[in-house]
Amino acid sequence: MTTMSSALSPARRARPAAGARAGERASHLLERSRTLVRPALAEAIGRLHPWVGEMAAYSLGWCEPGGAPVATPAHGKGLRQALAVLSAEAAGAPQSAGVTAAVAVELVHTFSLLHDDIMDGDPTRRGRPTVWKAYGTGPAVLAGDALFALAVETLAAAPGTDIPSAVRHLSTALNDLVRGQADDLLFESRPWTGPEAVRPDEYRSMAEHKTGALLGCATALGAVLAGAPRETVAALDRAGRHLGVAFQVVDDLLGIWGDPTVTGKPVHADLLRGKKTFPVLAALGTPAARPLARLLNSADPLDAADARRAASLIEDAGGRAAATAEAHRHIAVVDACLDSLPSTTGTGTGTGTTHGTRDARATRSTRSTDDLRALLDFLVRREM
Amino acid sequence: MTTMSSALSPARRARPAAGARAGERASHLLERSRTLVRPALAEAIGRLHPWVGEMAAYSLGWCEPGGAPVATPAHGKGLRQALAVLSAEAAGAPQSAGVTAAVAVELVHTFSLLHDDIMDGDPTRRGRPTVWKAYGTGPAVLAGDALFALAVETLAAAPGTDIPSAVRHLSTALNDLVRGQADDLLFESRPWTGPEAVRPDEYRSMAEHKTGALLGCATALGAVLAGAPRETVAALDRAGRHLGVAFQVVDDLLGIWGDPTVTGKPVHADLLRGKKTFPVLAALGTPAARPLARLLNSADPLDAADARRAASLIEDAGGRAAATAEAHRHIAVVDACLDSLPSTTGTGTGTGTTHGTRDARATRSTRSTDDLRALLDFLVRREM
Repeated sequence: MTTMSSALSPARRARPAAGARAGERASHLLERSRTLVRPALAEAIGRLHPWVGEMAAYSLGWCEPGGAPVATPAHGKGLRQALAVLSAEAAGAPQSAGVTAAVAVELVHTFSLLHDDIMDGDPTRRGRPTVWKAYGTGPAVLAGDALFALAVETLAAAPGTDIPSAVRHLSTALNDLVRGQADDLLFESRPWTGPEAVRPDEYRSMAEHKTGALLGCATALGAVLAGAPRETVAALDRAGRHLGVAFQVVDDLLGIWGDPTVTGKPVHADLLRGKKTFPVLAALGTPAARPLARLLNSADPLDAADARRAASLIEDAGGRAAATAEAHRHIAVVDACLDSLPSTTGTGTGTGTTHGTRDARATRSTRSTDDLRALLDFLVRREM
Repeated sequence: MTTMSSALSPARRARPAAGARAGERASHLLERSRTLVRPALAEAIGRLHPWVGEMAAYSLGWCEPGGAPVATPAHGKGLRQALAVLSAEAAGAPQSAGVTAAVAVELVHTFSLLHDDIMDGDPTRRGRPTVWKAYGTGPAVLAGDALFALAVETLAAAPGTDIPSAVRHLSTALNDLVRGQADDLLFESRPWTGPEAVRPDEYRSMAEHKTGALLGCATALGAVLAGAPRETVAALDRAGRHLGVAFQVVDDLLGIWGDPTVTGKPVHADLLRGKKTFPVLAALGTPAARPLARLLNSADPLDAADARRAASLIEDAGGRAAATAEAHRHIAVVDACLDSLPSTTGTGTGTGTTHGTRDARATRSTRSTDDLRALLDFLVRREM
């Protein structure tokens, strides 16, 4: 995960002291969620075939190939599980509902990383060999399938909740995920210009499906399992989806103008690969983009000097500014979705999803809604 | 699909005339199910991303790479969809429940063929290039994922039925499928003899998971969606699982002693590949197997002459007879499960799963139970 603030304009940044406090709170919320979810996630992984379970644990950064414990933890931040836990709490659900949603979403996320790394041919992730590199392509396909099946099983076995609705949410996210990945793969062979060129609206749809759908599922699933009102679920899903598009656009910005020592990605990797990123697509839509179009159409693939020149032409043609504005637009929608959430959403209609007195619930839900807002707010402004 | 009768003793075969009639009835039942399920299956596939949908349609034998219609149909028999349709009918369900179950099971089956072909490196299936050969490994991984997600979505969207139970059945089958495939892959690197050798009970467990689980799901899922009594569901699931083990053992027999022009598989492919098949494992468990053990342990991989000698040593050590007896044992369990089914099982307890008058339902269910018995009976005795 890389810093979003470096890619967006300074105007969006909080004051340093407030920013540090928000960062501490977000770190604390992420860590609290990881600690809460870990036992249930480990229990689920433990139900897998031992060999497949080892690949899953390796992929989660829990062990080395062969099963030995890792010297230094290599796990991700656990953004999706935190969103699931906090949104469930915000909807007044018992903690178990949030944990179930978090486990399901984390399993799907791990599955998708595993299979995407095969499709994209990526040899490393978080500084370690990808599963297909460490265990082989066939076993990596199998491990992904196992995680997928385990996610569905986890949700189907959740006690006393609206299972059909939860499974529908998960399968919609899964279908969207595949659709987004398919578009992303197909974009690579589409031309830069002409009637077959990728349009910005096609990009938005791809990004919403590929990145936003699972984030939307993470935020909504906790609320679904909590029996939250339909409008709450819809607002949370929409927030996650726009968060995803913003993330994808910022990722594109960082891929061109980010600091490689911070992003961990090689300089201009996306440009060298001919990836249809938002800044390029936005630049190509302007009259100033003629030299950029000539460069992209003439050389395939670009070399390092071409890529440097392309980066500067994209900026000249307004691609950087347009992408920054695009990210801000989606962040504004996330804000609006958060604003539309009732301050107390703990009046779940499902059976078995509420407990304690109404007052205690209202107090807890208000605090939990604040936590969710704090994390989302921090994420969209500071990090991805 | 290849003939089971050629691998089993003549004593199990029906008289020729009765056998021909049973064959006609089974063919008719398979065709009726395919005709019934095809529109819903096509509708589901049609909801996929067009590129992914094309791979799915190719994999189902409906089109050529690129999407052109096939000159000669290359679809499978549709055994699993027929089991789903007939078991739902036998449980007195409305036809839509059987069709939903059939679509879900057929999607999962297609997904598993697609990913298994990648894992096993198989270049052809039903005489055509496999999806990974025709479209590439990455796209084939993606298409499998899409079919998997679509199966879950299909079940989750089924109207007015016991969705959580149906999804649990499907996810159990999926987990078992992965477990069986993992064991099958790991068996390849295990030794032929010694404490690490694959035991027959490990083989049975692998075969039940890899082949039986989805057949059990196919037979049970229709009944689950129909709200059939728990005992009916359990008996149907058990029948499907034992049918699967019998299929796997017979497949092993045909792989060694079957007619390649009938089986469509190269002579001794399993032996040349060092596959841990039941006849070999059974033979190695006997005192007469010393020369076989020496041969298998000395040469890796075997050449064609070694494989011919191995086949004869396996038969001498009783491996062929033991495998035939093993298949018969599982077929006997299938028989017992069918016998345990109530002659009318149409007293579904689910809401919205029964319609019409009780008498009409009883008549239909009796006929449908007969159909299911006829198909299963034909399958276990005649074909796989």
